[in-house]
Amino acid sequence: MSEMIRVLRGNWTESRHRGHVAVVDASGALLHYLGDPFRPTFARSAMKPVQALPLVMSGAADRFGFGPADLALSCASHNGEERHRLRAASMLARAGLREDVLECGFHPPRHRESHHEVIRKGVELTPVFSNCSGKHAGMVATAAHLGEDPTGYSAPDHPVQRRILREVSAITGCPEQEIVYGVDGCNVPAYRLPLDRLALIYARLADPASISDRKRRGAAERVTEAMVTHPEMVGGKERFCTDLMEAFRGCLVGKVGAEAVYCIGDRQQGIGIAVKIEDGAERVLYAAAVEVLRQLEIGTQTGELERLSAYTRPEVKNMRGRVVGRIEPDFELRSGEPARW
Amino acid sequence: MSEMIRVLRGNWTESRHRGHVAVVDASGALLHYLGDPFRPTFARSAMKPVQALPLVMSGAADRFGFGPADLALSCASHNGEERHRLRAASMLARAGLREDVLECGFHPPRHRESHHEVIRKGVELTPVFSNCSGKHAGMVATAAHLGEDPTGYSAPDHPVQRRILREVSAITGCPEQEIVYGVDGCNVPAYRLPLDRLALIYARLADPASISDRKRRGAAERVTEAMVTHPEMVGGKERFCTDLMEAFRGCLVGKVGAEAVYCIGDRQQGIGIAVKIEDGAERVLYAAAVEVLRQLEIGTQTGELERLSAYTRPEVKNMRGRVVGRIEPDFELRSGEPARW
Repeated sequence: MSEMIRVLRGNWTESRHRGHVAVVDASGALLHYLGDPFRPTFARSAMKPVQALPLVMSGAADRFGFGPADLALSCASHNGEERHRLRAASMLARAGLREDVLECGFHPPRHRESHHEVIRKGVELTPVFSNCSGKHAGMVATAAHLGEDPTGYSAPDHPVQRRILREVSAITGCPEQEIVYGVDGCNVPAYRLPLDRLALIYARLADPASISDRKRRGAAERVTEAMVTHPEMVGGKERFCTDLMEAFRGCLVGKVGAEAVYCIGDRQQGIGIAVKIEDGAERVLYAAAVEVLRQLEIGTQTGELERLSAYTRPEVKNMRGRVVGRIEPDFELRSGEPARW
Repeated sequence: MSEMIRVLRGNWTESRHRGHVAVVDASGALLHYLGDPFRPTFARSAMKPVQALPLVMSGAADRFGFGPADLALSCASHNGEERHRLRAASMLARAGLREDVLECGFHPPRHRESHHEVIRKGVELTPVFSNCSGKHAGMVATAAHLGEDPTGYSAPDHPVQRRILREVSAITGCPEQEIVYGVDGCNVPAYRLPLDRLALIYARLADPASISDRKRRGAAERVTEAMVTHPEMVGGKERFCTDLMEAFRGCLVGKVGAEAVYCIGDRQQGIGIAVKIEDGAERVLYAAAVEVLRQLEIGTQTGELERLSAYTRPEVKNMRGRVVGRIEPDFELRSGEPARW
């Protein structure tokens, strides 16, 4: 358990957050860490690229003409902007499905202007508004393609989720029966794995050659390429996932998970990074992730990190717009394996 | 530094929060604690009752006819409901001041329905919307009463803030020159004090007889009585401060501060409680505060705590309304003084 990042008011610490980091190569070897790199961690939405693999592997994506933007939306925790909602609806339509088949529930758009517009116009919220609507559209499309009844697809024993569990196991090397899951915000299984296994997922997405199964490898390549080609579908306006992937122009794939999980795959080095803030605070997550990149010298020489300066040491402003504090990383990654007690 | 409260998904820990508690009597003696009871802590809005003392002591409250509901609003981090905004505006009007004298800035109402109404009607936000507008109205009214120019009243060297610093010092016993301050969200000084000194403030509000100065004692009595008589002005709908004080019917005075500070004064025992969640997470603060009350057996025999059951071990629900986890306190208060290293 390590101190990771501080919130300052003036020059004084007001609050502190602990965190954990695991950096691995595509063989799973631990290269760098902070805190407990084996911390059991719910991946939450950082699992979405894996959850999208059966959509490609089953042939459903090809059958329904889902292109890169659709696959990117399948991996998204999107803002609920109109472009995201329309695309999720279009995926459903192309699969011949109605929106009410979705079991994700809904919530107001995260994007502020979209949210205000919904309130102003009195628009009724429906499942496409869910930040997970692309993932769910992919899940039901896969079921429809395979001739399965999509009803109940969010339950762990439905073939949709059993296929996904198989992929989680295959890409992480964790036996299915050892993978613990809870229920996610959008009602599907939320997988809990050691943090270094989350990093391994992203190392393998970044270096698909490390995936032996040809079909799985091809799907991982397509999903990753889709995310980096359409970062605007993965998050949206003023979202770190989008800004990170735009800044790194295809070299990094990154995805947030709820409760402050961030995973990055470096496609140039073929390594994966997983960050978990112990208390689940998103407010410090991106500054922590950027600091990890800086310490690993990813994007430091080539200018990409500079484009993320808004996330680096974010200022805390008050209601008059005055800078009254800042968020400041306060850790150093260690190399190699930690001592095991 | 102690583990305090966990966020579970299913039966597994997803995130964890550390915390600190100090429980003192009105002499300042430490009765119980968790973590570091002397942790330097920005009181934030938990200081508001002290910031309201000069409003009463100066005679401004009497001069402008500020009753208990007005004084309660002066101590509030209110929801921005219409009743709060109208009262703040009325206080300004009674003091012969215009709203644009306020230097607090503004933000959308915290109360969801009020916020939506503002968006639907396209209402322009103004300083009375600030959750601190009552405090600021009290500050400028005090200046006006004393014939001071209120312009710049939010700066540390303005007489308004110098009077408040004197009160902070007097009630906590900390010399003025040792009290560190930053800038608060609403632009006035935010005081940083050892956590047990925040608890002492509330012990003294709960037991004003412990305050030797007659004028200060009378003001503390009036302010505390105003808060417990008008809890709806201190917070609003679905707010812990309001629900706590309503449940305890005058026996407890409680106030939240930003970055997860909660302070309570027990008027029956004359003790004060201060809680700080290390990472500033409000989501676990109230469950932590209620657990402290339970361990101190405040409201356990007499049924008040039962009325706060929604805050006790809050359920985590997902977007389908399904219970997928819970927030669970995981600490035991210690008695007496901690060993000093």
